[in-house]
Formats: sequence, structure tokens, C-alpha cells
Amino acid sequence: MKVSKFGGSSLADAKQFRKVSDIIKADNSRKIVVVSAPGKRFKEDVKVTDLLINCAKTHYQSGKSDDDLELVISRYKEIAEELGLDSGIIDVIRDDLNQRLANTSITEGQYIDSLKASGEDNCAKLMAEHLRNQGLEANYISPKEAGLFLSNDYGNAHVLQQSYDNLAKLSENAGIVVFPGFFGYTPEGDLVTFSRGGSDITGSILAAAVKADLYENFTDVDCVFSVNPSLVANPKAIYELTYREMRELSYGGFSVLHAEALLPAYKEKIPVKIKNTNNPDCKGTLIVADRSPENGPVVGIASDTGFCSIYVSKYLMNREIGFGRKLLQILEEEGLSYEHTPSGIDDISVILHEEQFDSQTEEKVTNRIRTELEVDDIAVKRNIALVMIVGEGMRQSIGVAAKATRAFERANVNLDMINQGSSEVSMMFGVNANDADRAVQALYKEFFDCN
Amino acid sequence: MKVSKFGGSSLADAKQFRKVSDIIKADNSRKIVVVSAPGKRFKEDVKVTDLLINCAKTHYQSGKSDDDLELVISRYKEIAEELGLDSGIIDVIRDDLNQRLANTSITEGQYIDSLKASGEDNCAKLMAEHLRNQGLEANYISPKEAGLFLSNDYGNAHVLQQSYDNLAKLSENAGIVVFPGFFGYTPEGDLVTFSRGGSDITGSILAAAVKADLYENFTDVDCVFSVNPSLVANPKAIYELTYREMRELSYGGFSVLHAEALLPAYKEKIPVKIKNTNNPDCKGTLIVADRSPENGPVVGIASDTGFCSIYVSKYLMNREIGFGRKLLQILEEEGLSYEHTPSGIDDISVILHEEQFDSQTEEKVTNRIRTELEVDDIAVKRNIALVMIVGEGMRQSIGVAAKATRAFERANVNLDMINQGSSEVSMMFGVNANDADRAVQALYKEFFDCN
Repeated sequence: MKVSKFGGSSLADAKQFRKVSDIIKADNSRKIVVVSAPGKRFKEDVKVTDLLINCAKTHYQSGKSDDDLELVISRYKEIAEELGLDSGIIDVIRDDLNQRLANTSITEGQYIDSLKASGEDNCAKLMAEHLRNQGLEANYISPKEAGLFLSNDYGNAHVLQQSYDNLAKLSENAGIVVFPGFFGYTPEGDLVTFSRGGSDITGSILAAAVKADLYENFTDVDCVFSVNPSLVANPKAIYELTYREMRELSYGGFSVLHAEALLPAYKEKIPVKIKNTNNPDCKGTLIVADRSPENGPVVGIASDTGFCSIYVSKYLMNREIGFGRKLLQILEEEGLSYEHTPSGIDDISVILHEEQFDSQTEEKVTNRIRTELEVDDIAVKRNIALVMIVGEGMRQSIGVAAKATRAFERANVNLDMINQGSSEVSMMFGVNANDADRAVQALYKEFFDCN
Repeated sequence: MKVSKFGGSSLADAKQFRKVSDIIKADNSRKIVVVSAPGKRFKEDVKVTDLLINCAKTHYQSGKSDDDLELVISRYKEIAEELGLDSGIIDVIRDDLNQRLANTSITEGQYIDSLKASGEDNCAKLMAEHLRNQGLEANYISPKEAGLFLSNDYGNAHVLQQSYDNLAKLSENAGIVVFPGFFGYTPEGDLVTFSRGGSDITGSILAAAVKADLYENFTDVDCVFSVNPSLVANPKAIYELTYREMRELSYGGFSVLHAEALLPAYKEKIPVKIKNTNNPDCKGTLIVADRSPENGPVVGIASDTGFCSIYVSKYLMNREIGFGRKLLQILEEEGLSYEHTPSGIDDISVILHEEQFDSQTEEKVTNRIRTELEVDDIAVKRNIALVMIVGEGMRQSIGVAAKATRAFERANVNLDMINQGSSEVSMMFGVNANDADRAVQALYKEFFDCN
């Protein structure tokens, strides 16, 4: 059994709906279909989810949002009409939206989540109708009915363990299950969503719950590439990579899958396949637990900007038991999460996301570190990018660091930081953000272009 | 004014005592002389400090130690006789030792400290006598009289701030002050020693207190070398390096100075000079606050063995606020100090000294980490060496990492870890201890041999 998830671009219009039904028809092991909300039809278009957020905010504050509502309904209507579906389905969707809009007795966060989630929910109803119209046995199943329970973190929920047993029963359904992504319910029965893009997570949870043979994630790219195609022309495709490699590449800015989406599949060792709805014959990228490194030690190169570092030095810091722990405690108390802590003997740098570190926070945190830890020197450096080379093969390969640093040298990029843990699935370099693209291009040339 | 400290090998016999007095006579700014206890006269010889520890342990337990005591006294006697000193000085030393041995009403730790310290104390009395015999005005000054107050950590004391004001008055002394290294007194008046080799610390404290122009540390090597001379023949001498560079090299196994000795001099920006008692015309090595990097970016290469790593991985660790802090807290609660924490995204390694991590500790700590932090994987790796390249010049130099990693590749040495902080005074590599010497030799060749 396969769980097949389709992203927003795969559901943007009637043409895309037809591609999806063709894909489902082509393989009768595709028994569970998870859908996003309709995405953009063209570059300047607005995603249904964004229309819904707008509609929800306007209505919660003013009690009116007729224009915004009609924009949403028109998207479904256009699809239904082009697919020749009975107009009753649009009445169902309109009633559903009006009910949600009327329910203003909840908090704004709950209200927005409720409207946002309707994008996926109504898309699933429409897709089920379309599949039935195509002669398939297909049933829309709601997350409430199926028992997908989430924590009550509105807009950023996490799955509760009990969901898995409930959702396992989906495999007993005779026809095709069409399931909306992105949301579930708290044990108290309130609707709650994952963070944006969370339909990927729903698909992964369902795949884990039914112990699927494969979790297919249909999107609009042929596969995962070894480097950002906007930086390198015709980059090498990755046909197979491990969960860990995908996770590291995601961290480094590869946005093909939601960062949290791999966890449920990873835990149950369900293989994940990235496929292109617009080119379903392309083999795509398979994500698995283990692979044999065949094409050299490195599988991909990624980079992400928006980091800063706090550098702290203190003579004989190294001999002060608890120094590092106290430093991290201050950050934790100030609500800051950190990424890495490369260290010398008497100095340590803490790398963190710059967005959480405005000048006011910087002043407070550096003052606390200066006085509470009695440091000799403290300095903040901004505009840092992390550049990563990723690959399971790096573990056995002498010389990867030599190749990588040679690339930085050739590109005349100074290294602020090198951080390689014992895991050796990745090697991470801190550089000035202005140098990041040049560094990535040089690394690609070094590892992929000279075969 | 200069503070000149002489190590044990510079005081091993009468011939060495004469070299010391010649050095003092040659420069009348050498006004404060700090002495260790007499060291080895030949390779198989025993240092006076070791004789004293033996003597103290035997006497504290059995109440008798006549043979051990005579061995100690014979060392002073031999020197005094060869230098033609009045035999009265040996009576003074014998009385002093007998008094210390008789005082068994203290703890064994205090007792051993008291006997150990006599090595330096009586050597200072003997040196003062020798200098007077040479026609110089010289006075033995005891740390108690001068007010060198230390914390009550027997065998591992630290200087108390009030000492500096007291010791500043030493500069008012008309003649040459001869001061015993290695020990001081608690504010309650109990004798207490630094950790072994702590005479270097005494000299540094005195230099800082009197705001000396220079702190000279006389030992038995011409200078600090850029690499361990037992690994590379005729290594390049280092004539000037910064406190930070010296500190990093010390960490990496360069044992020319006690690790804690630089701190007092560093705080007052007193230059420190390493000189050879046996070759005083050699220019030696000067340690200063700032230097201009002249001979390439790297000043020295060091390595040290005896490390192990705890590798921990957990899917989405990176999103778990406080994970790193909790990990370090467990280590702190188990009394473990750690060195470095290189990290990936979902994994972190903690590098620590292996000596504190026996198999029982390992079991306890890994169990706690496994259960309290619910990690996916935990593994301990032993027999790790840290190899370091050190140099202030690395900050401005692109390509140092490339050169270094190329050397590892050429030497066929796998890198378990790379850790470069934002400070860029050093770059640190974790390798299997069996590969460390080969790695150091390859790095030396890369950075020093190809000019």
C-alpha cells in the first residue's frame, strides 16, 4: 500500500486534478491520498491558503469578508466546473466556509487555524468527488473521524502518539481514502494546524500509521538536486539519499519537504519518494534508511543565510567547570535557541538564527554574559551563512575536508567556522553571507563537476 | 626590573647554581629570583620534590623516614660543599625539615604539601647564601612574610587577589630577593602548594605584582619550538608568540610553561621570556600580547592524546530547546569537565579527557543521557588525539584550512572532528591517537618545510 500526498501546485486547477487522478489510476496500490490546498496557477497567483488567512483576519475583526470568501469559492468552482462535477459539491464547500466564518466565539488563533484548514479539507472533498466521477471508489475521510489528534499549539501543532493506532484503521477502507493534510484535532475536539506546509507531515503520519510500503510526495520538481538549481545550471539529480542526508539538506535550505515531515516515516522506516506530478514517469528521489554511497562521498551541497554568532573568550575558560552549560543556560532563559557551539580552548562561539536576536536582545544577552560569566571579551558577528556538504559516504572518505577547503580557497572565501561532528554525515562551514553563493558554486565544481 | 625564575634542572647541582649566579650578575635589573627545588642531575636521578613526597608519606604513616630524609639533605649538602658555603646553612635546612616532619597533627594533604614545599623553600635559602657568597646583596624572603595568600586547595591552590598588593612591596627591597616558588599560605596561615610545576605560577604572580618589565623563565631548552623536537628533527624555533598562542600550544601538549602560569602576566601585560640556563646567550622565546605575524600564519603545531568522545544523535534534536544545555548539565552533575562540543544538526559530540571517564562512569552517564534525553543513538569513542595548528595569523589567511586538511589527506589520516571557533587563533582536529604523530609530521611539512 502506498500513501500519496499531492502538494498545492499539483492541485492548482482542473488540469492538475486530472493529472492527479491519472496518477492514482495508474497504480492501484495508491490507496491513501493526502491533499494540500490548491496552490498557484501562475507566478503572480495567490494560494488558497493565503486567501483564507486574509479572509479569516478580515472577518474576525470586521464581521464581514464577502469579497474574500467569493475569491476562495471561485477557485473550487472553477475546478469543479472544468471537471464536469455536480454543482452540489460547491454548495457543500460554501456551507462549510460559512459555518466556519460564523463561529467567532473562539480565539483569533483558533479561528485562523479553522479557516486555513478548510483549504485542505474542501480540496479533499473536491478530489474525492472527482475520483468518484472518474469511476473510482473514493471517500473523503475527515481527520476528526479518523482520529488524528494533535497538541494544542495553534499553527504549530505536533502529533499525539494515540493517533497512530486510530489512523492504522484507514488501511481497512475498501476504496481510496482522500484525506486532507495540514490539520487535526486536539483531544478536546478543537481544530488545530501544523506549521505552514504541514500537509507533508500528515502524509508521513498516515504512511507510518498504516505501515505503508512507500510514502509518495508529489510536488513540482523531478527530484532533489545536488545543489540549488538557481546557483548551478543543470545540477546533478539525487536518485537516492538517506533520511539523515535529507534532513541535513533541509536544514541547509533544501525546501522540498517540510522539516518535520520525515520523522514519522523515519521512525517506521517507511521509504519516502519525491515525485513530479507534471512528469510522473521520472524516477524521482527515494529517501531510505541506508544506501550504499556510489557516486562519491558527497550527495549534496546546501547553504542557508540568516545566522549570527556570539563570540566569548575568557582566559582559562577551559578549566572552569560548567562554563559552557552556564552560557547555554543564559540563552535558554532568554528564550533563544542556538545551532552550534564551535570552541577553541579559551573561547567559544554560539551560532544562532539572527531573526531571534534583535539589537535589544543582543544588548541584554551580552550584558548578562559579560557580568555573570566575567568574560574577557564578547563580540557579535552578523550576516553569517552556513554552507554544508552532506553525504553518508564522508564517513569513510579521507580527503573530503581537503577537497572542500580547497574549494573555499579557490573561491577566495574566508572560513569563519568549521564544524564537523563525529557523525560525519555533514561538514559545516560558516562564511560571510555575501560569499555563500560563490562558496556553494566552488564546492559543486570541486565535488561534482570534475568527474 | 626583571623577575627571573629558575626551574629544577637549573638548580640540580653546584655547577647549575653557578650558572644561575652568573646570569643574575650579568644583568642588575634581575632583582627578584624565584627558584624551584633541585631537579635531576642525570636522566635516572630523582627530583628533590619526589624524594620529599616519598619522605612525607613514609613518615606520616610510620613516624620514621631517616633514610629518605638523609637523601634530601645530601642533595643540599653536596651543592653547599661544592660552592664552598658555610656549613651553617645545612644545619638550617636540617632543622627546618625536622620541624616539618615532627608536625604530624595536620591532615596528610597538609603534611605532604608542607614537605613538598620545603624543596623550593630550602633551595631559596641556599641560593641566597650562594649569591651573598658571590658578593651580591641577596635576601631569602618567605611567602608568608611577603604575603602570598592562596586558596585552601591543598596541592592545587589558586592565588587570592590580596596577594598582589602585598607582593608589590618586594620591589622596594634593596638587594636581590630570592623567593621560593610553588607555595604560599592560606589566610589562616596554613602552608599550601600550587599543582606540580607551580613555581612558574609564583614567578608570574611576582612579575605581575611588581609590574616587572619582563618575567624571565629559565629552563633547559633554548626556546619554544614550532613542533615537538622528538617528532621532527631540527624544528623551527619560535622567537615571539602571543599569550593566546602559548596557551593554545600548552593545551596541545607543549609543556614548557605551567598551564596556569601565564594568567597573572597576561592580565598585567608583562612580557614573558623563555630562556636556557645552559645557553643564556641564546635569544629565547618572547611571549607578548600582540605580535605581527611575519613567518606565515601558523606559529606551531601541537598534539595531545588521552581524549574520548560521546556521540549523541536524536532526530530533530536541533528543534529541541535546551537539549545541549541538559546534556552538559548531566556531565556537570557527574563531575565531568568537557573540552569541546562539535555538532551536526541532529547530533552532537562531547570531547572529554579520557582519564575521568572509566567504564563505570561511562555506563552511568550514557544511561542517564539515553533515558533522560531520549536519544536515538549514543556511542563512546576512545583513544582520540587532538591535533592543533596555532597562530594569530590564521585570522587573515584564506587557505590555512585547505593546507591543513591536505596534509591530513597526504598522511592518510582520517579526521574524526574539525573544530574551528570564530577566534581563529587555532584550528583543532580530532584523529585516532595512533595517527597523531604522523599527522603532526605531515602538518609540519606542509606549513614549515616547504618555504
